[in-house]
Amino acid sequence: MSQSGVLRPGHVCIRVMDMDEAKTHYTQRLGLLQTDEDDQGRVYLKGWDEQDWFSVVLREADQPGMDFMGFKVRDEATLEDLAAKVKAFGCNVERVPAGELNHCGERVRFDSPTGHMFELYAEKDWKGNGLGLENPDAWQEGLVGMQVARYDHCLLYGDDVDGTVKLFREALGFDLTERVVDGDLMIAAFLTCSNKAHDIALVRHEEKGKFHHASFLLNSWEEVLRAADLISMHDISLDIGPTRHGITRGRTIYFFDPSGNRNEVFCGDYTWYPDHPTITWTADNLGKAIFYHDRQLNENFLGVVT
Amino acid sequence: MSQSGVLRPGHVCIRVMDMDEAKTHYTQRLGLLQTDEDDQGRVYLKGWDEQDWFSVVLREADQPGMDFMGFKVRDEATLEDLAAKVKAFGCNVERVPAGELNHCGERVRFDSPTGHMFELYAEKDWKGNGLGLENPDAWQEGLVGMQVARYDHCLLYGDDVDGTVKLFREALGFDLTERVVDGDLMIAAFLTCSNKAHDIALVRHEEKGKFHHASFLLNSWEEVLRAADLISMHDISLDIGPTRHGITRGRTIYFFDPSGNRNEVFCGDYTWYPDHPTITWTADNLGKAIFYHDRQLNENFLGVVT
Amino acid sequence: MSQSGVLRPGHVCIRVMDMDEAKTHYTQRLGLLQTDEDDQGRVYLKGWDEQDWFSVVLREADQPGMDFMGFKVRDEATLEDLAAKVKAFGCNVERVPAGELNHCGERVRFDSPTGHMFELYAEKDWKGNGLGLENPDAWQEGLVGMQVARYDHCLLYGDDVDGTVKLFREALGFDLTERVVDGDLMIAAFLTCSNKAHDIALVRHEEKGKFHHASFLLNSWEEVLRAADLISMHDISLDIGPTRHGITRGRTIYFFDPSGNRNEVFCGDYTWYPDHPTITWTADNLGKAIFYHDRQLNENFLGVVT
Amino acid sequence: MSQSGVLRPGHVCIRVMDMDEAKTHYTQRLGLLQTDEDDQGRVYLKGWDEQDWFSVVLREADQPGMDFMGFKVRDEATLEDLAAKVKAFGCNVERVPAGELNHCGERVRFDSPTGHMFELYAEKDWKGNGLGLENPDAWQEGLVGMQVARYDHCLLYGDDVDGTVKLFREALGFDLTERVVDGDLMIAAFLTCSNKAHDIALVRHEEKGKFHHASFLLNSWEEVLRAADLISMHDISLDIGPTRHGITRGRTIYFFDPSGNRNEVFCGDYTWYPDHPTITWTADNLGKAIFYHDRQLNENFLGVVT
Repeated sequence: MSQSGVLRPGHVCIRVMDMDEAKTHYTQRLGLLQTDEDDQGRVYLKGWDEQDWFSVVLREADQPGMDFMGFKVRDEATLEDLAAKVKAFGCNVERVPAGELNHCGERVRFDSPTGHMFELYAEKDWKGNGLGLENPDAWQEGLVGMQVARYDHCLLYGDDVDGTVKLFREALGFDLTERVVDGDLMIAAFLTCSNKAHDIALVRHEEKGKFHHASFLLNSWEEVLRAADLISMHDISLDIGPTRHGITRGRTIYFFDPSGNRNEVFCGDYTWYPDHPTITWTADNLGKAIFYHDRQLNENFLGVVT
Repeated sequence: MSQSGVLRPGHVCIRVMDMDEAKTHYTQRLGLLQTDEDDQGRVYLKGWDEQDWFSVVLREADQPGMDFMGFKVRDEATLEDLAAKVKAFGCNVERVPAGELNHCGERVRFDSPTGHMFELYAEKDWKGNGLGLENPDAWQEGLVGMQVARYDHCLLYGDDVDGTVKLFREALGFDLTERVVDGDLMIAAFLTCSNKAHDIALVRHEEKGKFHHASFLLNSWEEVLRAADLISMHDISLDIGPTRHGITRGRTIYFFDPSGNRNEVFCGDYTWYPDHPTITWTADNLGKAIFYHDRQLNENFLGVVT
Repeated sequence: MSQSGVLRPGHVCIRVMDMDEAKTHYTQRLGLLQTDEDDQGRVYLKGWDEQDWFSVVLREADQPGMDFMGFKVRDEATLEDLAAKVKAFGCNVERVPAGELNHCGERVRFDSPTGHMFELYAEKDWKGNGLGLENPDAWQEGLVGMQVARYDHCLLYGDDVDGTVKLFREALGFDLTERVVDGDLMIAAFLTCSNKAHDIALVRHEEKGKFHHASFLLNSWEEVLRAADLISMHDISLDIGPTRHGITRGRTIYFFDPSGNRNEVFCGDYTWYPDHPTITWTADNLGKAIFYHDRQLNENFLGVVT
Repeated sequence: MSQSGVLRPGHVCIRVMDMDEAKTHYTQRLGLLQTDEDDQGRVYLKGWDEQDWFSVVLREADQPGMDFMGFKVRDEATLEDLAAKVKAFGCNVERVPAGELNHCGERVRFDSPTGHMFELYAEKDWKGNGLGLENPDAWQEGLVGMQVARYDHCLLYGDDVDGTVKLFREALGFDLTERVVDGDLMIAAFLTCSNKAHDIALVRHEEKGKFHHASFLLNSWEEVLRAADLISMHDISLDIGPTRHGITRGRTIYFFDPSGNRNEVFCGDYTWYPDHPTITWTADNLGKAIFYHDRQLNENFLGVVT
């Protein structure tokens, strides 16, 4: 098989403070498709080009932020293998039964040194991307808003970045593609389980368990402009962009959902291979590392998390 | 690690009939960088964003075509493991010592049911992409021509497509991403060892061992236009494009090197995961499968190989 | 004022053989907006970014083709001045009263040496581009299909090209931006009344009064790809493209409406100024002049007209 | 003729404090081509797709800023006619003899209510865009840096904006395409002599004769990204961008030359026609008017001029 172990970030559960506003934002502005709603009122969404039933779950709560981030693994055997490894690593591991999230098989949930909750699962119902598996067209007509193709990754803030990086590398088999260092201190880490430049990113921060952003994939820099225009048309709170990251070379724009959770839409750049050396950014180049054009630290981007 | 087994198509050795013309074509028009030349007169090239020392080898000969296609594997242990598997599959396997190609470690060479020569290797000298590993810029200035980022894949023609597909799937762990069928007959197969939609493709053809094209990656549809313009400016023989493939959704243009070998430059589209079902194209949709806009069979594209 | 005399191609009346099919094609595929329908059953359309009430009129008839092409002029005084000039040039001139086309003022209609019917008018009701005149957004959400911005120009075929070129240059003040010559014979002419590379084009052809295509403007090469994809998705008859013209440098794709009338959607390239010399293409470069990438004459493109 | 009166902004003379640094900036970074240098040490530059001999003149001086902005007019008769009109308007008019700037005919120089120096001229030597006038290619290979196609317009700051707007509209025949108002006060004006959304722009400011930026044309939003990347690679002082303007819809990035003069590179959007109503932006929407995505006033952009 072309990829073993962890396949990809398969879902993220985001807390929103007003579900109606959130649904409008994620479906009409980002262009995610709603695929289900459960009896707890949680709303299930996917990008049009994703094949599993959902990749984003919205849960109404008093506070914004991320409940958990889930990764799809290759199969049940891989799930058991990785469950054992995260337990051996020292994480608290629990099992969430199949069906607790609609369409999703059993999940192995574990905490992490940075205080984030992660999950692994091997099964989710197949929904398809609307194009079929025989003689498919190239894309779906009738999409709205930013027309994001898929949920792509999260950036999380927490204290023990070294610990969570060690967990992802040693127990879960991720590679460290890029990192930011301040002397001996790793202040940010970009990790992949695939050929993407990142599947999860971590930034050192005094509080545990904070959520910086969930990111969604676009196809081109022209689509980044289109997203930027829509942000203005609908008076969405812009964080920064359109711009490029030095780290990962991604072309990007950041904004906030109505609850204050940060979203990114972006198009990627390079292909990662595990024989490539890790790229290092030094603290004196942090501005350029983050926003390649501005080359300036941005307090809002660095400090505001949910 | 994020990827095990075979990592990627690591090199292709192309026969050219006039080395000076070929060097001009591959360096000035495609924009590959020459990184070496050996005492047999073979010329070594790489795309600017590739990190290993070379990915294309040109060899002067009386006939165009492909000598062999090589895949880089994860490490020496993987090399031995896969060598055993291809031998067990029934291939003739030989060892090419380290250094036979400059900068390249030992290669495990084997034939295939379609009559193509393939290689596996675990080591090649690291050259880098010119940006460095600390605080790198986003791209290299001063590139010329089409400025291809990397060698990406080959499409090969041969008789026993089923056999070679079986070899790549069973011995080498590739996935079948897309296929074209005419009733029960598989007439084309697209295989990946990564998250790309294809790392090698095969088309059924009466003769063994034929070479349809080597393909090189661009970053955007705008770069496909730029390549198309350069093809006209330098009076390069155009095959077809700019257009899109139905298969893989790639946006592409095809043309010939001065020896008559076909080249493709393209930008990709979707991300493959091994839990995705194989896409099937049926013979009645073959036109659309190949050239999504034209939707017509093109005898030249289908029949001319080297 | 920044432009005097003739301002732009203001409308084209196209004959279609099935109005329902034509409405679907022009509104759902090209993405023109229907703005009216008159008691003769004629349908009025505009591109979203056009400000006057309509720019395309569809008339149901037994034969495809163009009834007439109309140009908007600066004001009533200009209309009278140009009416006198086309009459002095030798054209048959008639007046079509205001209101014969809904929302349109009086039209001065005249024939031409190539047998095409043209019109001039100074007044048409203002509709706006949907963005308003105070603090407008950058574009309109909710558009469908190719989302063409405006009707741009026509290419017409006829016998006495020299005569019609003389009419447009001498009586109407157009500039000759580019031309194709075969020895002393001008076989194609591209004329502008603006800073565009062409507002009307003419090709020498044995029959009088033929219609090659009406063209509609896109914003980018990426939108040309999108149009190409839609052509395939809706099984529209493709003529040629995506490609670039040598003449005008436009990036383009051609296809047919359900009645067999050819449409172009394209994005332009350079800015014309009247102190620029006319560009000349010679017959031996005709392939490149027309389709810059293919560089081959295309009998279908050259010969099929309505 | 397609355009009468004033044709376009034909040149701008910019003061720079170190000519060597300025030459590197304007030729290697923006990609202008140097076409001459005169015995006063002034350096002459043009964008690759401009046809006249130069469009930018650099003059070494103790202070940055703009010496004068020149407009090319249709012919000598137009020059005399417009000279009379600006004199009648009340400007101080002087004649600068042919040859004072190399390759340039006689210039009619006049001051303006905002304290800027403008020029009109009818003749400049023809240089061509390097593609020739017979069977030209689509663009020039071998360009460097941002590869700007042409000098496009200037934005100037001064006190009596109403006066200079009146001068351009009444004496020179420009149209007011867009304006920003604060109650009855016009605080910015965008004027055109062509089908472009602006050929000159003015902003109300307490000091006379200030220079906000000279702007250069790119072909696409992808080229704006490329320019942004180059700004970072060469550590050029970025002002703001990549972004879009609400006014004119242009997609843009701003930065400073080594002397502190602001440059813009941008790609345009809509086509202006003189029958279009002027667009009005109100002071409460000033943020969105200027930077469509940010929607925030930017003190640096508003206040820093040379």
